[in-house]
Formats: sequence, structure tokens, C-alpha cells
Amino acid sequence: MNDKLTHFDPNTGKAKMVNVADKSVTTRVAIARSTLKIGSKLVEILQSGTLEKGDAFTVAKTAGILAAKQTGLLIPMCHPLPMDCANIEISLFPDLQEIRIESEVQTTAKTGVEMEALVAANIAALTVYDMCKAVDKGIQIVKTGLFKKTGGKSGEFINPDMEW
Amino acid sequence: MNDKLTHFDPNTGKAKMVNVADKSVTTRVAIARSTLKIGSKLVEILQSGTLEKGDAFTVAKTAGILAAKQTGLLIPMCHPLPMDCANIEISLFPDLQEIRIESEVQTTAKTGVEMEALVAANIAALTVYDMCKAVDKGIQIVKTGLFKKTGGKSGEFINPDMEW
Amino acid sequence: MNDKLTHFDPNTGKAKMVNVADKSVTTRVAIARSTLKIGSKLVEILQSGTLEKGDAFTVAKTAGILAAKQTGLLIPMCHPLPMDCANIEISLFPDLQEIRIESEVQTTAKTGVEMEALVAANIAALTVYDMCKAVDKGIQIVKTGLFKKTGGKSGEFINPDMEW
Amino acid sequence: MNDKLTHFDPNTGKAKMVNVADKSVTTRVAIARSTLKIGSKLVEILQSGTLEKGDAFTVAKTAGILAAKQTGLLIPMCHPLPMDCANIEISLFPDLQEIRIESEVQTTAKTGVEMEALVAANIAALTVYDMCKAVDKGIQIVKTGLFKKTGGKSGEFINPDMEW
Amino acid sequence: MNDKLTHFDPNTGKAKMVNVADKSVTTRVAIARSTLKIGSKLVEILQSGTLEKGDAFTVAKTAGILAAKQTGLLIPMCHPLPMDCANIEISLFPDLQEIRIESEVQTTAKTGVEMEALVAANIAALTVYDMCKAVDKGIQIVKTGLFKKTGGKSGEFINPDMEW
Amino acid sequence: MNDKLTHFDPNTGKAKMVNVADKSVTTRVAIARSTLKIGSKLVEILQSGTLEKGDAFTVAKTAGILAAKQTGLLIPMCHPLPMDCANIEISLFPDLQEIRIESEVQTTAKTGVEMEALVAANIAALTVYDMCKAVDKGIQIVKTGLFKKTGGKSGEFINPDMEW
Repeated sequence: MNDKLTHFDPNTGKAKMVNVADKSVTTRVAIARSTLKIGSKLVEILQSGTLEKGDAFTVAKTAGILAAKQTGLLIPMCHPLPMDCANIEISLFPDLQEIRIESEVQTTAKTGVEMEALVAANIAALTVYDMCKAVDKGIQIVKTGLFKKTGGKSGEFINPDMEW
Repeated sequence: MNDKLTHFDPNTGKAKMVNVADKSVTTRVAIARSTLKIGSKLVEILQSGTLEKGDAFTVAKTAGILAAKQTGLLIPMCHPLPMDCANIEISLFPDLQEIRIESEVQTTAKTGVEMEALVAANIAALTVYDMCKAVDKGIQIVKTGLFKKTGGKSGEFINPDMEW
Repeated sequence: MNDKLTHFDPNTGKAKMVNVADKSVTTRVAIARSTLKIGSKLVEILQSGTLEKGDAFTVAKTAGILAAKQTGLLIPMCHPLPMDCANIEISLFPDLQEIRIESEVQTTAKTGVEMEALVAANIAALTVYDMCKAVDKGIQIVKTGLFKKTGGKSGEFINPDMEW
Repeated sequence: MNDKLTHFDPNTGKAKMVNVADKSVTTRVAIARSTLKIGSKLVEILQSGTLEKGDAFTVAKTAGILAAKQTGLLIPMCHPLPMDCANIEISLFPDLQEIRIESEVQTTAKTGVEMEALVAANIAALTVYDMCKAVDKGIQIVKTGLFKKTGGKSGEFINPDMEW
Repeated sequence: MNDKLTHFDPNTGKAKMVNVADKSVTTRVAIARSTLKIGSKLVEILQSGTLEKGDAFTVAKTAGILAAKQTGLLIPMCHPLPMDCANIEISLFPDLQEIRIESEVQTTAKTGVEMEALVAANIAALTVYDMCKAVDKGIQIVKTGLFKKTGGKSGEFINPDMEW
Repeated sequence: MNDKLTHFDPNTGKAKMVNVADKSVTTRVAIARSTLKIGSKLVEILQSGTLEKGDAFTVAKTAGILAAKQTGLLIPMCHPLPMDCANIEISLFPDLQEIRIESEVQTTAKTGVEMEALVAANIAALTVYDMCKAVDKGIQIVKTGLFKKTGGKSGEFINPDMEW
């Protein structure tokens, strides 16, 4: 963490895209997480096999990966980037009444892929939400954030608050 | 809330798009909310005027509204819809160390706009995240969900857990 | 079938978007099919369970449904349309060495959804192709077309050449 | 061709995006082909000049090139790539009652552009289909596949089944 | 024309999307125009047949029509709309050293299609620009605006300044 | 400027995408400009504070930056590119009754970003147009073009006709 507001013009204070022309091309990885809190009825249905949980989670994984590749078209000040890899894992924790989503994105570029990982996890979470909302309108996404980041000048970052 | 898993095929349990052919065209409104928890240093900077908070929030509002219109292209089982209106409000609560986002989407269609409102609030939240992450890598989106929904066969729904 | 080249200007012969302003809003359904011919090794792997066939087919189904909603952004003279439903089924026929894809799209609109159904089936086919090409570079999509169409002024159409 | 299911996780068998971080940046070219089978009446109209064939084919070429650049947004496990070149040729073979489409895509990247070439050829084929379907509802895309591929670790590949 | 700043909140003065929920669904047409000023060398080349002018203009027409359908995804406060028709005409006026573009968009909806027509004309103009800029870097788009608008509460509007 | 019609096939004269495989990766910058001519009533409103001019201009800036990243998806023969930076400045000149927009885009790539800068300036101009058209239907975009370009084989280019 630092004091520099890289995304704002120092003179006007207005939001801007950071110029990454002089940054080095290095391998960069970001891992983001998103947790859905669900009701007991939905837990039951997801466990009972009335709906094919695997199928629903694969739909969400696919949506998240496709969205990650649109990050630069969704988040205004984000740079469009090549991507080496993007993957998402989704698991049900019945006792906790939670669905946990973890996304991992890797690139070889001048800037990191935190936003790509966050978009992937979020859109996957919203896709699960969409498919289950008829049963459980109270679903909430209770926690979304960056868990880990490696590569780039600032080195490794782990957010302990984002541990499961 | 009901028991029907409208987004899953009753025979195979596989995810599917709901057929809305026989639903009525009515006015439908959805309000979603998303809250960012931020560190004290970011609160200070946002209050000090070093960065123009209004400008940053307008960038986020614009990103959220544009994303709402892409909902059907991001969330697989969502129907593409005409939209009567989409708006977003973003406010800083310094004492709570929170940035609160509320989106409201309205349509005259066969199905509701919960997902549009949720996408709007989420992408706005991620845009704020993106612009502030250089100062505060620990930002989290701590709560995202549907606050209110009117119109359609199921009538009004208010989620008390999503009150501020 | 008729003689009118609705997509071409009668004076200049140039391609144009058909004006549907005066057409009636009716329920319209289109079913398209696409068949992949695959090698024996890929059949074996898909049957052996080394890869989770269901997961691969769900990824393809999701891609096809999302693409159907982008039809108007991909096919120049296609009208952007609301959609009541879009679904895709994908099955392996080991003895025939075929993967068969059927998409069904429904709308209540002034024009039909043939192209939406065709885009859905095609992009699903290409997604299967993509995931399996490392094992079988010779995969071909051997047959893609409209199988059935109902609704609209021209009434029901069935293409016997597209029966399985 | 090899035995490795690069697009599937070896433990779970689930579809995933291949990690190309360690692959070399090289020049890669892919040529794909797609053939439309059309009825005699459409052949006649295309030859008679009632519609400007060149104009229709240019519309299809343009759609195919634009779609090639969206490959990563359409095909879930495809990497977003820079592109050095993408071109498409479309020809009518009246005696064969065929319209033949060939796309060629070139990149300097860590992974190939087969899918980009296939998307280009397919969307061009569907665009021709769309503009001609009022005259000939029975049009079929009878053969789509990769014809040739050069560059990358696996070297040159030619599919004799895709020769004209 | 009126005094009401429909796109701004009366209390805060901030930009917002107009709520069209209570507006009537009527037929609405908009015609926009865009003019490119080009150098004499480019005029000569376009006339000489060294490049196939028709082909270049068809590429631009196709790009403009596709972009019109993305208007709501490009212009933040624009409503996503169904479209009945969108067409573009492009002509070279050698003596004036001008390329003139006219787009016409029609809808049956609650709000007009001025922006769709303007996006169509502009993206067509930029596409011509792109294909000719190697010969003539000084090309300018000298005039873009709404020429005519019919339908909706405000009735017919013709802008005399946009006559050719 | 040169004589070569790089965007056209020398044999057929048909539009094509330039092959940039052999071009060098260098730093390239492009600056484009777009000017809106507005009526006196709109000038007055923009000055009076009835609408928050800054907010409107930030919405337009955001739309322009997002559109710049879609250039390859809008302009058919444009290469998809990584981008180091994209920024936009918008200013009101009340006495001239002008709103002036300048965009600057930078890349490290095989080809330039003129079209990215032009798309950014144009979509920002159209966004301003959209938000103000209820008050002033006669707004025109009177001048759009490339002001400056550096990097690449052709070196620096300044268009004196695009000076303010």
C-alpha cells in the first residue's frame, strides 16, 4: 500500500487511467474471493439433488471466465490485457450456509489482474444468485475482495481478512 | 419466495433459461445495494479533496449504468430486456468507513430487473474499488443484495437484511 | 419459401436490413441443429470419464445461450430482439462418432429467431471444438441449419434435411 | 495430435482455460473453411445480378472479421489475443451450388488462432445465411473446420479432409 | 426544443437516465448525417478504381449498422431499444471533395432513435477514415448531426443546418 | 502521407486488414479532437449551474474511454491492441459556443492508436450530445480529426487544420 493516488490527476483530482507505458512486463497473478450467504431451504435443495448443483456451478464458472475477459470493457480505468489463464472454483459449504467462489487470473503484462479476478468472482456469484433467486430471494453476497496478488513492483500481497 | 426451481429443468435438474412467453408485460422495479468497507486512510483522502470524490463516483455511476444494460450478455440465464430507467447513487459515510451504492432499475417487461440492478451496483462498486486500490488494497465489498422489488406476479418484496 | 429478396434493396441490389415496422408481434420459435463429427480417440475419452463430459457440454451450452443474445451484434442485418427463452441440448452418439447440438429459441416479436437459434448452436459447437481440439484436430462441424420454425406470416417450416 | 486433454483438469476432469504463461511468443497462422450448400433458385439469383453478390459477400466478410476479434468473448476457454491480421474470402461455385468461405488469421502470441479463424468463417457463413434465407430456407452449412495451422510447438498441421 | 433538462436531476444537477416508463410506444424515425472532407489525392484514387470504392463503403455501412445496435452499450444515458430498421448510404462527391453519409433508423418504442442514427453515421465515417488514412492523414469529419426526426410527443423536427 | 493503399488488396482493390506481423513494437501516441457547436441557451444553462457541467463531462469522458477500448470491435479493419493509457479532456468555451474534446491514447504495439483516439473523442462528443439534446436539438459535431501522432515508422505527424 502507498499514498499515491495513481488513478487521479495530481492537479485536478479527477479520475484517470494510469499510464503503464514504462512499467515492466512481468508475470502477475491475482486471486479474488466472493462468498454467498444462502437460506436453509436452498442448502437443502442444493444437497438433495433436485437440481444438478454441478451444472449450475459450471454455468456460473463459465459466466465468470467470460466476464473476466471483458474487464476492460466494464471497468473504465482498467487496461485491456492479454490473459494467460483464468479459472474459478465454486463450492457449497452446507453447514455454514455458504457458497464460496475463488477466481485466479494470471497474465504476463505491464499491470496486474486484480480487477479481472474480482470481475470473474463477482459475475460468477451473480450468476449463482440469478439461478437460485426464485427459491431464496434473500441471498446476499457477503464478502468480495482480493485475497492474494503476486508479481509487479509492489510484490506479494495477501489480505488476511479474505482468508476463508 | 416459493419452492419452484424455475431456473432448472424438472427432469434433468440442469440449469436453463426460464420461458417467459406467457408472463404479463407489467411495470417492474428493482433496487439493489452494495457496500464497500474502506480503510481510514482512504476515508481521509476522500474527505480531504486531494481527489475529486464526485468525479470518481460519477465514473463509477456511469460504469454501473452501462453494465446494467449488458446484464443479459453477462448473466447466462437472464433475459435481454428493454429498460425504462437505470440510476445509481453513491455516498461516502466517513464515520462508518463505508461507501454505499444503491441502484434502481425499472422496466415494462415480462420479467423483472433484479439482476440488472445487482449488476449495476456491483460494477459501480468494483469501479470504485479499482480507482482506490492503490491507496487501500484491503477494500472489501461487504454486502450486496436486492433491497426491494415491485411488480410482477410475486408482488412487492423488501429484504429487511438489506436496510442500511 | 418465396422469391422476394427481402434483405436486398430492389433498386440497387445492395444488402439492407429489412424494415419490420409493419409486421405483427407474434410468438415465434426456431429450432436449429449442428453436428460435430469426431475421431474415435475423442469418443473413447468422452466415454471413459477421464474428462467430465457433462461439464464440457454445460460450458458449451452456456456459451451458446450467451451468444444467442448477441446475435444482433454479430449478424449485421439481424434485428435486436427481446427473447422469451433460449435453450440448448448437447448429446454424444458414440457409435456415430457424433456430438449433436440442438438449440431452441422463442420470442414474442415482429420477426423470427432463426439466426438466434443458429448462432446458439454454432457457438456451442465451436466451444466443444475448442475444448477437444488438443486431442482431435480433425473435428469438423458437418451440418448446421434450421430444423424447424413456427410463428410469423410464413407459418410453420420444417426442413426434412435437418432431421437427425 | 496428442493424448493430453489440455482443456480439462487432470484431477477433476472439469473444463478449464489452459495456462499459456510458459509458452513462447511465436508467429502463428490458422486457416479455416466453411461451406454453404444452397438451392438452385438462390444460385440463379446470385448469378443474375438481381442482388449485388459482391455487396452481400462484403457484408459477410466484415461481420466475420469483427467476430474474429470477439473470439475470446464468445468461446469461454479461449485466450484474448492481439491479432496481426484477419481476412476472409467468399466465392460462389454455381455448378456445385456452394458458397465457400476461407478465413485466415495471424498472430504473434503464446497460443494459436484456430478458434479466431473458425469464428470468422462461421459468422461470415451465418451472415450469408441470414441475407439469403428469405429465398432459400433450406440453406445448410455443410462443413466447417480447420484447414491449416502453422507456428507453435506442434508445428504445421494440414487437414486433408478440409481440402476443397 | 424546450427548457427542460430531462437528462439531469432537478435537485442535484447530476446526469441521469430519463425515465421513459410513462411515454407512449409509437413509431419513431431519425435521420443523421456525417460528412468527411478528403484530400484531392484520395478523391483521385477513389475515382480511379485502384481501390474498389463500393467494397470500402459496404464495409463502412456494415460497421455503422452493427454499431447502431450497440448504442445503448456505448452512450451511458441511452435506453436499449428494439429496432425496426437501420440503413446507411455513403456517396462520394468528387468536386466537393466530400464523402457524405446518411443513416436512417426506425423503431416502435417509448423513446427515439436519434442517438442510434448518430452512432451509425459516426462509426461509418470513422470506418471510411480508418481505411483511407494511409493515403490521407488529414481527413476530417466536418459535420455530424441530426437531420430529421419524426414520431414521439415532440413531433417532426428538421434541422436546416444539416441539409446537404 | 504516402501513396500506398495499405487497407486495400492490390489485386482486387477490396478492403482488407493490414498485416502488421513484421512491424516493430514501439511506443505510439495519438491525439484526436472533436468540437461541438452549441446554441446560446445551452451555453447559458451550462454556465448557470442548473446542471452540474462537471458531472456531465465526466459521464462523457467515461463513455469515451470505455469506447476507445472497444475500437477493434467497432471498426472492422482495426487491430485489437493493448493500451498503455487513454484520457479525455472536455472544456466549455462559452464565447465561442463550443465544447472542445481532446483524447490522448498511448500504446506499445505494432500499430498506432489513431482510431482509438478518434473513437474516444467521438463517443465522448455523442454522449454530451445525448445529454443536452432535449435543450438544443441543433447541436452539431463540427470537426473531428487526428491532431497529432508520434511513434511508428512514419514518425511524428501534426495536422495544423486540427489546431484549436
